[in-house]
This record gives sequence, structure tokens and C-alpha cells, in this order.
Amino acid sequence: MMMRIIFLLSLLFALSNASVQDFCVANLKRAETPAGYPCIRPMHVKASDFVFSGLGTPGNTTNIISAAVTPGFVGQFPGLNGLGLSTARLDLAPKGVIPMHTHPGASEVLFVLDGYITAGFVSSANAVYVQTLKPGQVMVFPQGLLHFQINQGKAKAAAFVTFSSANPGLQILDFALFANNLPTDLVVGTTFLDATTVKKLKGVLGGTG
Amino acid sequence: MMMRIIFLLSLLFALSNASVQDFCVANLKRAETPAGYPCIRPMHVKASDFVFSGLGTPGNTTNIISAAVTPGFVGQFPGLNGLGLSTARLDLAPKGVIPMHTHPGASEVLFVLDGYITAGFVSSANAVYVQTLKPGQVMVFPQGLLHFQINQGKAKAAAFVTFSSANPGLQILDFALFANNLPTDLVVGTTFLDATTVKKLKGVLGGTG
Amino acid sequence: MMMRIIFLLSLLFALSNASVQDFCVANLKRAETPAGYPCIRPMHVKASDFVFSGLGTPGNTTNIISAAVTPGFVGQFPGLNGLGLSTARLDLAPKGVIPMHTHPGASEVLFVLDGYITAGFVSSANAVYVQTLKPGQVMVFPQGLLHFQINQGKAKAAAFVTFSSANPGLQILDFALFANNLPTDLVVGTTFLDATTVKKLKGVLGGTG
Amino acid sequence: MMMRIIFLLSLLFALSNASVQDFCVANLKRAETPAGYPCIRPMHVKASDFVFSGLGTPGNTTNIISAAVTPGFVGQFPGLNGLGLSTARLDLAPKGVIPMHTHPGASEVLFVLDGYITAGFVSSANAVYVQTLKPGQVMVFPQGLLHFQINQGKAKAAAFVTFSSANPGLQILDFALFANNLPTDLVVGTTFLDATTVKKLKGVLGGTG
Amino acid sequence: MMMRIIFLLSLLFALSNASVQDFCVANLKRAETPAGYPCIRPMHVKASDFVFSGLGTPGNTTNIISAAVTPGFVGQFPGLNGLGLSTARLDLAPKGVIPMHTHPGASEVLFVLDGYITAGFVSSANAVYVQTLKPGQVMVFPQGLLHFQINQGKAKAAAFVTFSSANPGLQILDFALFANNLPTDLVVGTTFLDATTVKKLKGVLGGTG
Amino acid sequence: MMMRIIFLLSLLFALSNASVQDFCVANLKRAETPAGYPCIRPMHVKASDFVFSGLGTPGNTTNIISAAVTPGFVGQFPGLNGLGLSTARLDLAPKGVIPMHTHPGASEVLFVLDGYITAGFVSSANAVYVQTLKPGQVMVFPQGLLHFQINQGKAKAAAFVTFSSANPGLQILDFALFANNLPTDLVVGTTFLDATTVKKLKGVLGGTG
Repeated sequence: MMMRIIFLLSLLFALSNASVQDFCVANLKRAETPAGYPCIRPMHVKASDFVFSGLGTPGNTTNIISAAVTPGFVGQFPGLNGLGLSTARLDLAPKGVIPMHTHPGASEVLFVLDGYITAGFVSSANAVYVQTLKPGQVMVFPQGLLHFQINQGKAKAAAFVTFSSANPGLQILDFALFANNLPTDLVVGTTFLDATTVKKLKGVLGGTG
Repeated sequence: MMMRIIFLLSLLFALSNASVQDFCVANLKRAETPAGYPCIRPMHVKASDFVFSGLGTPGNTTNIISAAVTPGFVGQFPGLNGLGLSTARLDLAPKGVIPMHTHPGASEVLFVLDGYITAGFVSSANAVYVQTLKPGQVMVFPQGLLHFQINQGKAKAAAFVTFSSANPGLQILDFALFANNLPTDLVVGTTFLDATTVKKLKGVLGGTG
Repeated sequence: MMMRIIFLLSLLFALSNASVQDFCVANLKRAETPAGYPCIRPMHVKASDFVFSGLGTPGNTTNIISAAVTPGFVGQFPGLNGLGLSTARLDLAPKGVIPMHTHPGASEVLFVLDGYITAGFVSSANAVYVQTLKPGQVMVFPQGLLHFQINQGKAKAAAFVTFSSANPGLQILDFALFANNLPTDLVVGTTFLDATTVKKLKGVLGGTG
Repeated sequence: MMMRIIFLLSLLFALSNASVQDFCVANLKRAETPAGYPCIRPMHVKASDFVFSGLGTPGNTTNIISAAVTPGFVGQFPGLNGLGLSTARLDLAPKGVIPMHTHPGASEVLFVLDGYITAGFVSSANAVYVQTLKPGQVMVFPQGLLHFQINQGKAKAAAFVTFSSANPGLQILDFALFANNLPTDLVVGTTFLDATTVKKLKGVLGGTG
Repeated sequence: MMMRIIFLLSLLFALSNASVQDFCVANLKRAETPAGYPCIRPMHVKASDFVFSGLGTPGNTTNIISAAVTPGFVGQFPGLNGLGLSTARLDLAPKGVIPMHTHPGASEVLFVLDGYITAGFVSSANAVYVQTLKPGQVMVFPQGLLHFQINQGKAKAAAFVTFSSANPGLQILDFALFANNLPTDLVVGTTFLDATTVKKLKGVLGGTG
Repeated sequence: MMMRIIFLLSLLFALSNASVQDFCVANLKRAETPAGYPCIRPMHVKASDFVFSGLGTPGNTTNIISAAVTPGFVGQFPGLNGLGLSTARLDLAPKGVIPMHTHPGASEVLFVLDGYITAGFVSSANAVYVQTLKPGQVMVFPQGLLHFQINQGKAKAAAFVTFSSANPGLQILDFALFANNLPTDLVVGTTFLDATTVKKLKGVLGGTG
């Protein structure tokens, strides 16, 4: 018997060495690569590296959009690195809105936890797909397309979302146009908005230029 | 003004034709390809094709495992086709269990909706990663590894899960070993189980051979 | 000698059959799949299928944007199918602009043929990258990010662009917001624009709702 | 007990439907797509679809190269479709040679079954990597690079090779240059070979032009 | 003439610098990334980096499974890094068995070198595909599915196998269930096995808990 | 108002951290990985990192091939890293030729800027696809296949080319055969060329052995 175990353990040892890693928990202190972060060593990986607790409580919706996005991307949840998935939580107070935005690097599925969420996206062919979702319904938003979520109901709404990349990106249209130093004349020139509107929104959103 | 609109519409028309599709709602009646199903034509796509309502109600847990898996894969939710994501709902009555299983083609994230779920997976290096999760916690299971979910609490538990493929596959260990016609001697020979155990489980699970 | 040729030809024949296709010219009449169109048979493929002549002449810039985008995507250039590349030509009269837009499925490189083009994009981290390019300069726009091209010079400008997908998609911001039936209240609610501005632009761009 | 089995079978049935296919045996009669052939229906798939018997016997080496390549690509072995692998057998009589060639779509590993094989490849940086391999040794050839295998020993040699694609392609240099209708002046102009050499080789290899 | 060579060499030098690497021999001392190991510098790459000699001799089958798996993965064969392929050798004494296992990250092709091997896999739809293979036959095992190889003949058997990833992983069912510290109650709870069987196998295989 | 901006900025800050990078400008001093170079930190990225100016002037065609290839690959244009695209410029004096070559890791599109270029490629099935292109025409060359460009006109010709990888590789046939230390007997043995021709070309191109 003892011999059998020894044989087995040596076999197991050989095989364990053979199969290096089937996951790659991110070492966030190292420089990223196009495929994600370098991995921490398997011996330092703990069960808790595969668990993320940041989505259990509603985000603070006392803000201009009456809504909150709480990300669980690779930066917050290093166990996702290289696995092609990431997560987030949306909270929308009544009249709350996740403004028009895109995820440049991922498709998204949204699962409604509470309340009613009106969500939609626009395709490259300029078709509009809008639905009002109730708890338990799921909607998918194809990669890179402008989409939004809005709470037109009277109660709080919340959703759990996942993305088809550990690092989906998030580009909020208004922030991209009005909350940075993109010069007003370029914003005016590349949208059909007038300078007064652009300057007003830059004022609200903290943009310059 | 009229002329401007005409110019614009012709531009838009050219562009719409240029960008064929940024999604590919599955035509389930056509033969699959390695990359998924052929698409239905964009003109036939409706907003509701991107919504799935099958996960809103708990699955029936009055069964031998006191649990239910409700899939929202491409077969049930054709809008996912080609987008690299799919969904499911898990329901576990007290003592319910999603038995040891793998998804051959996808990693998984699990978001606990209700109750407490003890979940774990085993790596190629034979390390065990187990955690007991509470509502709002998320756990990720790397592609292809044996994993399980079990409800050790006293209340019902439920979870929403997503996968990194529209067609992740699902191989339940006990079904693979005991619920088909794989001959008993091959099951015995390729596991360390004895024939009595194998035959008993084949009896319970409806296997033959 | 004759025998040698016969041996060789039979070898060649076997090998030709072995290696089915190293390209896949699109059969545009067949339904797309997530990986592109089905291929036409190799015996019907001609050298001209790999050539596209639609980018040699400037597009018509007598329109509201004083600019033109001429696509050479898989829909116009079926030889690109499955090869991960597509093309387009931009023409900008003085003050012409390719308005703020994204390509949901591809990165882009732009090569300036004539004139001066001011181009820029905004990142997920809301940083702005703008450059004025002269003939022969190349700029790259990462996948899915809002970007624009504008001619601030006094002469015509033109560029040849390529994308990292045979079907990159093209979503022009103003069209997505104002040139379809997305209801005004949703546009207002998901941007920081006021209803008057939205309605005015819907009027200009032919939108309803 | 009966009830338990019924519950289980219904669960299994639901899951089987959920997970459509984890393989895609090629339907060679249907048009290819960039990702491979459409799949035959799972109900028609047999165990023998995953087995290929064409590599068990040596190919005929009584030819000008004293060698044979026997392919087991998706065209011969439809079970490989979509799985990212294909196979072949090489046989080399003494002095036999698999002439300089590339696989445009795949890397290759070669396992020597019998005899001694001198194999090599040239990199983009123009470095030469040559080794003489004995039975049981493995060599890897990176994707798309010119490589060759030659039997400089006195006994027959054979190898089993696999590729990182179900359809790797195979372009034999001499056939590409001299065994088709590429005009002699273009061959001369794009190589440093003289017309006499080109015409002689076109004669040997059956080329025209 | 001299001038020509100088021109050519400078051209070649420019091009060599342009095309950085077409392979990426692993630097195993550096941390992995999701796409594999960092590369050693091209100047340090030798022809022998692309050759692996570890599969030429049979593995030791004097053990409980009368079989041996000798891996040639990226950890043993660094030249495979990034090329999407890896290798192994199987040796099975009479009655030897490679127990039920999966490769979480790759499909596999098996080429029988000697003897008779009965091999099979189970699909997500719970169909069983078993074949007895003779020398020269090839079988493919789709990614992530439970499979096994067994020698039911009277002579030794051996096979050369390749995988569609440089790091396929290897999860042996019995080791995953019985050779680690996964608590007995969780093993019992997530399989249909009884505690006596589980404890007995944990004893044989060196598991605890 | 102030409060609103503070809320917004904190939201923006959270989101900016969440979405790490949507590009990955190469740090060329660090070791490559199979997916490209590690990224420089986003804070160090400048707009000019996304611009390449090296293709604006014709390359020097006073050489043996009367032609020049000027690469804009990741080594020259680090902003391309991870974006799946790269660039180059071809210049051909009258009678100039880019000799028969392959790109092992990418497909190519060529846009003619000036003059007439006769270009062609040979498929795995040994079919020849040749076309003479005029300014503004585009031709695509599928990955890994032997191809060439030649100027048969009386005026200078130039082209802008892009590749479907940041690091496409470039293997020029004559350099691979005659400009390195590949022994003459191996060149003779693996092509159908005679030793005199091989030695002569080795002399011209600076090869040894």
C-alpha cells in the first residue's frame, strides 16, 4: 500500500508540474500585457482570490444621475484575469440613469435584481432596440454599441451585469464629450451641438477647453 | 434643409449597408458552425430577441438533488449567438446540490441572489478552492475545471451565473459516469470505484451496461 | 521523365485536396455566421475577387458634413471575408468632418493621402488624444473608442483607412442619437442635452420620436 | 425510486438540450465558413467520426522526392472540424525529402516514428534552425515559416505530425514557383533565378507559362 | 558587386529588425501571463530549443495504474510557448489505464504507436464515444470532456498525443476527488458516492479530510 | 452645483480606475510575450504614441531590387501593440520588385498610392492570382501565402500596406534560401535547384555554407 501511494504521489507530482496553471490571478503591481496582467504564483493563490464581495451592497445614488456603477473588473477582482469575464452592479434610484455609454472591448449581459429598468442600444445600422425589463429578466448588449439603462419606475432598481472580457472598458458619452479638455470647437465641429450647449455641459461636468 | 436631409440619408444608407451586422441572432433551424449558428436577417431582428425571461422564476427543486439548473444558453436565448456570453439560474433548496461538473468550453461567474452557497473547484495542480458565499458575493470558476455548488444553509438559495461562451457545455460527473451506456467494466477500470458501487449508481441514475 | 511528372501531379493533387482553402471569398447571398459569410467554392474564385476598385475616386463631399466615407468592408469587397481586415476611404473638403463615431468591432489605422487632418479619440479613462496629421502620417485608433477626423485646412484632404476586422461596424454618434426613432425623452434622459436641442437635431437629421 | 429517475431524466434532458454541441463534425457537402464547415447533427455523430485510419500505413515513396505526405486534415478527418488540430504522416525513403514548404495557417509538431530525419526552418530574422532527429524526438515549426524534412540516413524514416488548425494549408515552394501557370518572367523577376533554371524546373514539375 | 551586397545587407538588417519574433521561446523564470510566458531574446534561441527528447523512452508503468503519462508541455518544452500546441506520451502495460480525466484548456489527438488502446469520451449531451484503436490510428478528444485510455490487450501499448494549447492542463478525476483535502462530506454531497467508498479511496490515493 | 461636480468627478474617478486600459502602448525595453509587449503606464501615454511618421517619404530604391520596404510594425510604432494591425510602405522604381515573400502571421491589404503595381499570390491549392493595380486600387493577400509586387511600368510606384497583426513577420524567399548559413546541400536537397545556382545566389546575397 505504502508503495502504491508513493507511486501515485510521484505521478501526481509530475502531472502537477506539467500543467502549469489553468487560471492566472493578476499581479496588479506588474505591467499589463495585451492579454492581461502577469499571474501571481500558484502557491500564493487562495480561494478568496476567486471571490469578489464588492457588489453586495447598493452603490451611492445620491448624485446627478441618481445612479451608481460599481465595477468588479480585473482591477478590483484580480481572479478574473485571463478568464474572459468581468462583473459590475448597477443601482438606479427612481429616475436614475446610467447615461448613454459603450464598452469598447466586451459584450454585456444584464440581470435585473430589483425594480424595473428600461434599457436599450442602437446598432451600426441605426436600429433602436429598447425594452423595459422586470426582475429576473436578462438583456444582452452587443460589443461596442451605444446603450443605456434608465429607471422610469417609482422604486429603486438594481442589476448585476457581466462582460465578455476581464477588462471591458467603459466610455460614458457625456464624460467623453464634456468632462475632459477636448476643445469646445472640436466638440462642436464633430457633433451637431451648438457651442452654448457644449460650454454649459462642460461647466456642469467639469470639462475645460 | 430638405437637401441636407437627403444627403444625410443617402450617407446613412451607404453606411448602414457597409456595416453588415454587429450581432448575429441565431437561426436555430440552420446547422451550427464551429463559431455558432447562422444569423437571422437584421430586418427580422426585434428588441425582444435580446431579452430572455426564463430565469425569473425558481426552477423546480423537488428532485433527487434538491436543486435546479435553468439554462439561458444560445439554444434558449438566440440573441447571445456569437457574443461570447451565456447565462443560467441555479436554485438550491436546503441541502440542495449542483453536483460536481464541468463546462468544457467556458469560465463561469456566479452571483448569489439568495441564501448561502458553498462553492468550490479543483485545479489541474489538484489544489482545492472552496468558499461559502452570501448574497451579493461573486465567485469565478476557471474554464473546464470540476466544480460544485451546495446549499448547507437552512433557507433556499439561488444564483445567477454567466459563462464566457454562448455555448459553454455542461458535463455533470455522475451523469457522465452512471447515466448512459458506458459499460460498467470501463467505468470500474477508469475510476477507482468498485463494480457494486457503479452498478448501484447506474441503477439510481438510469444508466445501462 | 513522364513518370516523374505523373507522380508529382498525383502528389500535388492529393495535397491540393488536403488543404481546403486558405481564404474564404464571401458568398453574400448566404446567411452570415458569427465568423463571417460562407465561402464561394475555390474553383469559382478569380484574381479580381481579391481586388477592390471602389476607393480610387474621392467620395461626394457636397453634403452637410462636407465629407464622405466610402467603405470597402466585406459587403463591398467579399475577398476580405475571414481575413481580419477591411478598408475605407475618407474625403474631407475644407471644414469637412467625419463626425464623432466608433467602430464597435475593430481598431483602425488611418494613412493621410492628401491635405491635413486633425484626428483624435477619447479613452475609457477619459483622456483626449488629438493630433494634426500631414500626408504620409499614420494614426491608430483603438477598438470601440469615440473618435473623429476634421479638416481644419484650406485644401481638400483624403485618407485611406484599414480596420482589424472584415466587418468593423460604424456607429456615428449623431445618427445614433438623432437620426432614428429613439424617443426624445430617452435621448434627453440618457444624455445631458435638453429637449429643445434634441428635437432640433432630430429635425435636421430626420429622426422621429 | 421511479420518481427519482423521472426527475433525473427530465433534468438531464433539459441540460442536454441546453448544451448544444461540444464538437462539430464537418458536413463536407456544405459550404465552408471562415471558422470551418457546418456541423452534422449530433444524432448522426458516431464514435468512428472521431477516428482516422489513414495514417497507419506508409505512403508511396516511389516518386521524384522519395517521400510522401499523407494528410489527415478536416477534408479527410471531419471530426477535427472546429477543434484546432489536424494530422499527417510523413514517409521518407533514404534520400527522401519533404521539400521546402510552409503551412500558412498553423504551427506544426513532428514526432519521429522511425529512422533519422534532418529538419529545419528559417525565421523572419533569417536565422536557420536545423536538427537531426531520432525516433521519439519531437520538433516544433512555428506558423508560416519555410521548413523542410530530409532523410540523410540509410534506412526508411517516418513521422507523425500535428498542426494547430483543422485546416493548416500546405504550400510547397517548388510547386508554387514551378508547377502552375505563373509566367516565367514573373518567377524570374521575383526570385533571383535565371530563366533557364525556371524553364527547366517548370518542365520537370509540369508548369506552364 | 560589393555595393549590391551592402545594399542587400542593410535591407535585410532593416527587415530583420522590423519583424521582431515569429516564435516566443518561454523564459520559465519569469511570471506567466494569460497568453503564456515572456520570450527569451531571439539572439539566445538555439535550434535545440525547438526539439524535445523526453518522449523517446517509455514511462515507468510499475504503478497502481500500470500506465504512465510523460508530458511535453511548455514547462518541459519551452519552444512551444505561444504556438498553440503541446505534446505527451502515454505508456500502458497490459491492463494499464489512463484514468478518466479532462484537459480544461485543449482538444487532444492521440496517435497509437504500439499495441491496442481502447479510448473513449462522454459528451455534454451524455453520449458515449468509445473505440478500440490499433497502431497508426488517430482519435480526437474534444476540449474539456471526460475521457480515458485503457489497454485491454496482452501487449504493451504506447501513444503520442498532442494538444491544441501549449498548456492544456490535466485534471484526473480520481485525484481531483480523492487525492487532496476536499472534505469527505463535500465529496459525498457532490457525487452520489457513499462516505465509505470516498474514505477508502482517499486512503488509497493519499487524500485527507 | 459644486456638489454635483464632486459627485461626478468621484464617479468618473471610480470608473477610470475600473477600466484599466483600452490600448497598450508597447514598452519595447521589456521582454515580449506571445500576445505582444508589456504596456507602458497610461499616464505616460501621449497622443504622439498613436502617430507614426516614418512612411511619409519614399524609401531608398537605389539597390539590387530597385525597391524598398519601410516597416511600421510594433518595433517602429509601439502604439500598435495589441491592436491587431501594423503598417508599411512599399516603393518601387521602374522594374523594381518586392521579391517573393510571406508574412507568417498576418494577412495584408495593399493600397496603391502611385504608379502601377503588378501583384500576385499563390494558394495552397497552387492557383495563381495576379493583377495589375492602378492608383487607388486595393488588393488583399491571405495570411502566410507566397506573394510579390513588381513595377512593370515606366514611372515610380508606391503603396501603403497594412497587416492583420502588430507583428506580421516578413520572410523573403531569396534571403531565407541564399542569405544565411543554410548549407548548400540542404538548399539543393530541399529545392529543385542545382548547386551551381545555389552557390551563385549565395554569393550575390552574402550567404555562406
